[in-house]
Amino acid sequence: MRYDFGGLSRLLEPDSVAIIGASADPTRIGGRPIRVMLQGGFRGRILPVNPKRDRVQDLTCYPDIAALPEAPDAAIVAVPAHAALDAVDALGQRGCKTVTMFTAGFAELGEDGRREQERLVTLVRQHGMRLLGPNTLGCWNVDLGYFGSFTSSLDLGYPLPGKIGMASQSGAFGTHVAAVARRRGIGVPVLVATGNEADITVADAIGWMAQSDRIDVICAYQEGFTDPGRMLAALDAARQAGKPVFILKSGRSEVGGRAAASHTASLAGDDAVADEVLRAHGTMRVNDTEQMLDLAYVARKRIYPVDNSLGVITVSGGAGIVASDEAEQQGLPMPPMPPEAQAELRALLPFCAPANPVDCTAQALNDLNLFRAFIHAALDKGGYRSVICFATTVAGSPDMAPRLLEALLPLREEFPDRLIVICAVAPPEIVERYEKAGFLVFEDPSRATRALAAMGRVGKLLSARGARLEARSDIHLPSTAPDEFQSKALLAKAGIAVSPEKMVHSAEEARDAATGIGFPVVMKIVSPDILHKSDIGGVRLNVTSADEAASVHDELLAAARKHRPDAGINGILVAQQVSGGVECFMGISRDPSFGPIAAFGLGGIFVEILRDIALRQCPFDQETAREMILSIRGATILTGARGRPPADLDALARTLSRLSHFAAGAGPRLLSVDLNPVMALPAGQGAVALDAVIELQEEEPAHAD
Amino acid sequence: MRYDFGGLSRLLEPDSVAIIGASADPTRIGGRPIRVMLQGGFRGRILPVNPKRDRVQDLTCYPDIAALPEAPDAAIVAVPAHAALDAVDALGQRGCKTVTMFTAGFAELGEDGRREQERLVTLVRQHGMRLLGPNTLGCWNVDLGYFGSFTSSLDLGYPLPGKIGMASQSGAFGTHVAAVARRRGIGVPVLVATGNEADITVADAIGWMAQSDRIDVICAYQEGFTDPGRMLAALDAARQAGKPVFILKSGRSEVGGRAAASHTASLAGDDAVADEVLRAHGTMRVNDTEQMLDLAYVARKRIYPVDNSLGVITVSGGAGIVASDEAEQQGLPMPPMPPEAQAELRALLPFCAPANPVDCTAQALNDLNLFRAFIHAALDKGGYRSVICFATTVAGSPDMAPRLLEALLPLREEFPDRLIVICAVAPPEIVERYEKAGFLVFEDPSRATRALAAMGRVGKLLSARGARLEARSDIHLPSTAPDEFQSKALLAKAGIAVSPEKMVHSAEEARDAATGIGFPVVMKIVSPDILHKSDIGGVRLNVTSADEAASVHDELLAAARKHRPDAGINGILVAQQVSGGVECFMGISRDPSFGPIAAFGLGGIFVEILRDIALRQCPFDQETAREMILSIRGATILTGARGRPPADLDALARTLSRLSHFAAGAGPRLLSVDLNPVMALPAGQGAVALDAVIELQEEEPAHAD
Repeated sequence: MRYDFGGLSRLLEPDSVAIIGASADPTRIGGRPIRVMLQGGFRGRILPVNPKRDRVQDLTCYPDIAALPEAPDAAIVAVPAHAALDAVDALGQRGCKTVTMFTAGFAELGEDGRREQERLVTLVRQHGMRLLGPNTLGCWNVDLGYFGSFTSSLDLGYPLPGKIGMASQSGAFGTHVAAVARRRGIGVPVLVATGNEADITVADAIGWMAQSDRIDVICAYQEGFTDPGRMLAALDAARQAGKPVFILKSGRSEVGGRAAASHTASLAGDDAVADEVLRAHGTMRVNDTEQMLDLAYVARKRIYPVDNSLGVITVSGGAGIVASDEAEQQGLPMPPMPPEAQAELRALLPFCAPANPVDCTAQALNDLNLFRAFIHAALDKGGYRSVICFATTVAGSPDMAPRLLEALLPLREEFPDRLIVICAVAPPEIVERYEKAGFLVFEDPSRATRALAAMGRVGKLLSARGARLEARSDIHLPSTAPDEFQSKALLAKAGIAVSPEKMVHSAEEARDAATGIGFPVVMKIVSPDILHKSDIGGVRLNVTSADEAASVHDELLAAARKHRPDAGINGILVAQQVSGGVECFMGISRDPSFGPIAAFGLGGIFVEILRDIALRQCPFDQETAREMILSIRGATILTGARGRPPADLDALARTLSRLSHFAAGAGPRLLSVDLNPVMALPAGQGAVALDAVIELQEEEPAHAD
Repeated sequence: MRYDFGGLSRLLEPDSVAIIGASADPTRIGGRPIRVMLQGGFRGRILPVNPKRDRVQDLTCYPDIAALPEAPDAAIVAVPAHAALDAVDALGQRGCKTVTMFTAGFAELGEDGRREQERLVTLVRQHGMRLLGPNTLGCWNVDLGYFGSFTSSLDLGYPLPGKIGMASQSGAFGTHVAAVARRRGIGVPVLVATGNEADITVADAIGWMAQSDRIDVICAYQEGFTDPGRMLAALDAARQAGKPVFILKSGRSEVGGRAAASHTASLAGDDAVADEVLRAHGTMRVNDTEQMLDLAYVARKRIYPVDNSLGVITVSGGAGIVASDEAEQQGLPMPPMPPEAQAELRALLPFCAPANPVDCTAQALNDLNLFRAFIHAALDKGGYRSVICFATTVAGSPDMAPRLLEALLPLREEFPDRLIVICAVAPPEIVERYEKAGFLVFEDPSRATRALAAMGRVGKLLSARGARLEARSDIHLPSTAPDEFQSKALLAKAGIAVSPEKMVHSAEEARDAATGIGFPVVMKIVSPDILHKSDIGGVRLNVTSADEAASVHDELLAAARKHRPDAGINGILVAQQVSGGVECFMGISRDPSFGPIAAFGLGGIFVEILRDIALRQCPFDQETAREMILSIRGATILTGARGRPPADLDALARTLSRLSHFAAGAGPRLLSVDLNPVMALPAGQGAVALDAVIELQEEEPAHAD
């Protein structure tokens, strides 16, 4: 499906705005937006509507919507719920195309409110309008001085200009983050709070920001995915535009509560799936507001080094070690300075530690040219993409700060493509001077390190743009759930290797099949009614002769009849016994939001006890499958730990990728697939699925009457 | 060993201080401390010493140390290195007992400097003095206005009063943290930077703070443990005094680099050992300066609820969910409000969400009595030990803040033993008003949640005080490394169950031993020269008859002679074959700093691939052993996962505790023990060590001549 995110422009960039329920009292919700727009210098026309007044806050006030002198680009509805629908209808008739509805009393109140909200949506659609809310704190766009919001958070000051957009389901939380940003000197010029999301969602806001020149970096707060397709399209649009999205998706703690039907789903957990899908669409998930703002603060530089590396130049050995510890934790490389560069630095200052962290000692602060020389060496000879200069309180001293800034300024100009952080304890006005000169300022070296490390990850996420694959169209599911034999046949058609096997229906057939396949063989009961075959003695390993195969056939049937006399038996499966490999688990589960999700892990305790699992949204290519396989904690078992032969990773990755294509092509009727085990044989010998369970949604009758 | 931490009182609480190398220029290192003490109102006498001047900064200046009018409590040495030793000698002769030596040019410069520093230490000891430094930024004690430091960080302002002490090896890092604290309104009235630690270490500073009434909360920065015994004694003293220690021990990233001798040590890693030892001594390790200050900020309340729980009262559903997610992550329980209390809150405000998080909606900010009623219900009916009230920018508005404070003040008085956080975006002066009234203020709900969760952990760490056990004195090691048979005998004497077994020296003896033990048996070669028996075919399982035992005896001997013709053979071990349990690993390794450390994990991949290991400093009791066992990721394998019978945890914990006592009692000659595997049998059936390797340091000859 194609999504159009342009529809929000009138909402966020209006030339004129009508306030329905306008109030003369600037502390009331119908008065506050007028005051903040008047004080904030809104460039457009403000059109108050209130039947009881001629003028509101020194503006001409109109008695009703029909009396408006023009069709406003945007309208704010601040009347009680019982009058809100009439207002929307009148706005639609007057030709207004976007409504921000502060009014509460809809879906958040339960069933009655939900019905009323549905009527509202119907009305909005009839008029071809877009609706923000109801029950929203509103939106703003500082560039135009537009404040379609009644938030009191603006009492602490107006948002600063900048290039960061905030899309938040929760108004209080969104404005909280914006207020924290302002206190830190970070501009959040566009905010959209989506409230009840009757029409416009966080996804729409992200999508609009993705295509707006006003915004370089997108922050979002989201509780659940109401329309996952729209969200993923918005995230893809942001990635296409090269804009990072930092999303705080809350509700992690509810994960455990939801019962999950299939094996894979119960192993994975919904929240892990959301994590993986967000990542696959180029989005970075954050855990708290500080991390969100730290990343947005640095991301404004639009420097996302895929080949990120960190150089630390410090006047304190301690700070250097602390930053190095954090860099290792974050996987951010800190290669040493080249030997010649180290020798040069030693010549400058005999008792420096020139490797990396580069400790230039407090001496360098007595001679700022020396400090600059050390940082220059790190940028030039060291070639680090990111640099932290730890200068602590010295960088914050009103006496030293201007001199330090003067000394460092040439570096900012010579290396415009690097991230340069000054670690300083400084009053806000001094921080601002460094920032205006293009430097980043952090107090805490660990926090700086985390933010710099994230920019490298952003670079990788953004550069993976457009890697989405088309689902294959040649997968045809049967009308009822396939048994093991049929499941394997389906998968084999999709290119997945399964063990050579035959379905038999008599002892004689079992004898012939086993002889044909070669010994030893495995024999299993095949019944749609018996899922856990081993529990009833329905599986026999190590069948080594034709006679044994014949008698095992009868024994398996007898066992099935004894334990499950009511079960339908499709036959007995005779399969080659494959051994000498590593048992793996591959599975598919259908996520209600994101469609088929593939899981990979090692067999037995690895998935069942340790939950050592990698997930990906389907479909994906062999390279991605390989990354996925190697990302599990137990991966060394496959790569040759403890003297084992390395497993056939190519075949394993091929199988996993093909399974993902099968799942994506199969459509929504495919509920789950469990391949348990897939035997990963030694390198060059392949990977074989030894068991397969496919769950399908029952096909609906063509005419249900 | 007993340590005396009182010796620092004269250093940190001097009545008089001499400055050797006093300067009239208040920006020089011999002038700065005089200026900051004069401006900071030092209550004692400042005695400048400089042969070239009569007066320094308006104070009488003395030509030399002998001319001082009194023996000063403390002296600051700010003369060049070549004159420093003479100054110390003269100070000693004048009767001065503590020296803070700013002078650099000692051990930090290499071998020559190290020798000079040793001369300095000898001199100090001769005079019975204590020495801070050399190469230190110094120390301060704000309560007395004493600043024995030349740090320029004081240019940003003097430290605030309070009850937090900072002990830092790195001066720049310590003053950086103190400056950040000051900017956040957190008092760090005592700081000790230990520099080269020729005498006084971070441990001494912690020990002094542990016994000083000036300090309630201790922060420390440490790179390595030069004198681990002293450090642990200091940490124990702090715990005895009920004072938390938040320590940033850097150097995590160097862990991988060090080669480790024994199996256990290589599995554990030095840094994991340090983590565990710090925890065992009641100390909380932190990873960055912000976390350190967050914890210290909350810890000043001296409320450390062992039974911690969190109630969140919020005007934003979003913030409530974000805090809940973090609480789950931190293991901080958020039980729901009791049903009656929920009903009462619903009666107050029909559309609230009264469970926990308690969402009282923005409505509660329109009627602050309502907001107070919600918070009161959480404290009273909910009984939460910790509470977060999320009021965002409203709590920071100059108009609302005084009214909110007035509304909440009665709660602070009624529930003095609770931690109450107000989440607010507020200017510093408003934050200060909440704090003065006894509330804690955080901007970020996640960060507040982390700090509150830590207070519960502090409570548990402090309440474990005095749990240290005495080492047993009846462990006697042989003079040379024992073989497997001897090792097991040693361990059996220490109360550890081993498999019934016999050492045999002929096929005939093997036949008898196996028959006596009962079949099946295991047979192994025993040789001090063959550590990896399996690799040369030196182990045979499943020996089921007397005849087989006899022939296996000869085969094992032959295999050993073939593969290792030079190996000395002590005999063949015939042991009962124990099966039907879970294979575990127990080990001991001797840490150079902290003595014997015990490791526990499950066998095979769990320790070797997944590094799923718990560590403890020896000795420890059975209860601690049990905690340790249950703390590994794979613990469910022992408690009955996947339909297994639960293992005999009592026996396993007993065995592990006894091993720890054995190791502690064995003394420093015991290098390592590996019990691999220990078979944990089903509940009630015990735990049995099936293999044992003990490594010893060779005994030194009594007279080496």
